[in-house]
Amino acid sequence: MLVDRVLADFFAAAKRRATALGPRYVDLWDVLERNSVGGKRFRPRMVVAAYEALGGTDDEACALVGAAFELLHTALIVHDDVIDRDFSRRGIPNVSGSYRDTATTAGIASPAAEHRGMSAALIAGDLALAGASRLLLGVTCAEDVRFGLLELLDEAIFASAGGELLDVELALAREVPSVQEVLDMERAKTAVYSFEAPLMAGALLAGAERPLIDALESFGREVGIAYQIVDDLLGVFGSEADTGKTTLGDLREGKRTVLIAEAATTGEWFAIRPFIGKSDLTEAEAEHVRGRLVSCGARAQAERLVDEHAARALAVLDGDIVPADLRVILRPVVDTVLERDR
Amino acid sequence: MLVDRVLADFFAAAKRRATALGPRYVDLWDVLERNSVGGKRFRPRMVVAAYEALGGTDDEACALVGAAFELLHTALIVHDDVIDRDFSRRGIPNVSGSYRDTATTAGIASPAAEHRGMSAALIAGDLALAGASRLLLGVTCAEDVRFGLLELLDEAIFASAGGELLDVELALAREVPSVQEVLDMERAKTAVYSFEAPLMAGALLAGAERPLIDALESFGREVGIAYQIVDDLLGVFGSEADTGKTTLGDLREGKRTVLIAEAATTGEWFAIRPFIGKSDLTEAEAEHVRGRLVSCGARAQAERLVDEHAARALAVLDGDIVPADLRVILRPVVDTVLERDR
Repeated sequence: MLVDRVLADFFAAAKRRATALGPRYVDLWDVLERNSVGGKRFRPRMVVAAYEALGGTDDEACALVGAAFELLHTALIVHDDVIDRDFSRRGIPNVSGSYRDTATTAGIASPAAEHRGMSAALIAGDLALAGASRLLLGVTCAEDVRFGLLELLDEAIFASAGGELLDVELALAREVPSVQEVLDMERAKTAVYSFEAPLMAGALLAGAERPLIDALESFGREVGIAYQIVDDLLGVFGSEADTGKTTLGDLREGKRTVLIAEAATTGEWFAIRPFIGKSDLTEAEAEHVRGRLVSCGARAQAERLVDEHAARALAVLDGDIVPADLRVILRPVVDTVLERDR
Repeated sequence: MLVDRVLADFFAAAKRRATALGPRYVDLWDVLERNSVGGKRFRPRMVVAAYEALGGTDDEACALVGAAFELLHTALIVHDDVIDRDFSRRGIPNVSGSYRDTATTAGIASPAAEHRGMSAALIAGDLALAGASRLLLGVTCAEDVRFGLLELLDEAIFASAGGELLDVELALAREVPSVQEVLDMERAKTAVYSFEAPLMAGALLAGAERPLIDALESFGREVGIAYQIVDDLLGVFGSEADTGKTTLGDLREGKRTVLIAEAATTGEWFAIRPFIGKSDLTEAEAEHVRGRLVSCGARAQAERLVDEHAARALAVLDGDIVPADLRVILRPVVDTVLERDR
């Protein structure tokens, strides 16, 4: 994928620049680069899908925009891991983990080593965030288009930061949030930067008019929300082999998901609540919770919500605004989201 | 100062935008705003000084550029406080402190309350960083000028992040770094974004040519380094009444300063070393360290370095490139840096 080459060039240039400050700074860029490769390049794919279906032909410009959203993704997960005090992602040390581990190997004791890890990750996330803007400066396009792209990036950062804050705050609040609060948080934290903004950016770069860009925002929002609810379902009912994540994690950290918000409105909540946020939850206890989440109707209700938002996404595609070429490309996006679950 | 109004407008707009995600997000913006007012507006002053002396007349554009560097400053100190695990700045709760304190009041125990504080500060710093770019998008200017301004901002972030990383790494390293390593770190961490980039940005906006912009980079570097060495001196020998900071802090955290790097090259280091990084250092012990830092020549050497860099800064001003109007305005900047010390 061209975006891989663009990102490789970006990191190579950053490392050349970093040399002026010595090998330690080059190392940080190396670790950051390792944390940005190997992903599914989901956001660049959204940019490319919209751009190509709308007749865009400047692959280089499109790849730069895609790479910008990929780096934003890197920035957000690196900082999210700091907030969650996670030292690995999908079984591999993340930025904090790499820096903690080399400190430990050098004989630095644990609190100091962990702190070094988090400090490096905080700095690396800042660099990835700034890198996203920088990549947009390299796009060859009309100035009003660049302006629009930088505004979309800003909008995505604004929304993600707000969603991250709500995630932190909802987890600490005594009362379980409402389903609507969870959906608003999940939309802001993930849907905007993963679906809405990349689709809009691709369309903008291709010269699309406002009504189409707005339609892509709606489509992105609906499919993005559906995606997040599926994520909540997989976090408890998924198979570890498929998702690469333990299905105890969400329950142990007491994550405020759509499932939990639904369950809290039912009469069976009293039997579920004691296990939510129990850091040493066993697989047997989790199985009990899963059974209750089914019997209280929370799972069915979450699945209904997935279908509802997916249907709304499809309705946007089937309206008068989205041209046929783009419709053909985006419909499978909805299918993929639904298929993760079934 | 016009920059205050620009920042007030920026925060008002951000809070209006944040309303869509509810009062919690508006609160974060409120806390961030409180952490960005009350400063000396040092960086905006550098922008304005260069811009006005070079004949710039668009005060609004200049204030936006100044505000961008002020927000960058806010972002960097908010994240620096997370790295240093500080919950206050100049005696007032910072972002982490505010969020920790309201959590404590709500009955949340200390590790969770502190973690909430750091999480909010990490997010707030990201928002300030993105806000700096956003402000530059609002500047009315030719597109190549905006491009140059965004590049200067990027350069400043790149350098500061590198400096912050080196600060973390030098503090953990077993050996005391060399004076040159400390100077490189301090230049990257502070001089670039506080002196070099703001002066260059003001000149760029005023339509200055490359040689003058390069001269301002050199001037900013030299005066910025002098400023940092003075800071190191004040951190140990300053008066608490003047600096608002305890003169035990740097010694207790074992900060790698020019003073320490100088002392480590002398025969008296054996008598100083045991007290560097001693977290319960007493005032009597600090007085002993101060005496040794004087007798070993580290203080005199640091003062010589201040004079040397200040002289180089003045030499740039007195060269052929900097016009008289700007020279008159920048000379007092050097004097102010020197006077903090004497």
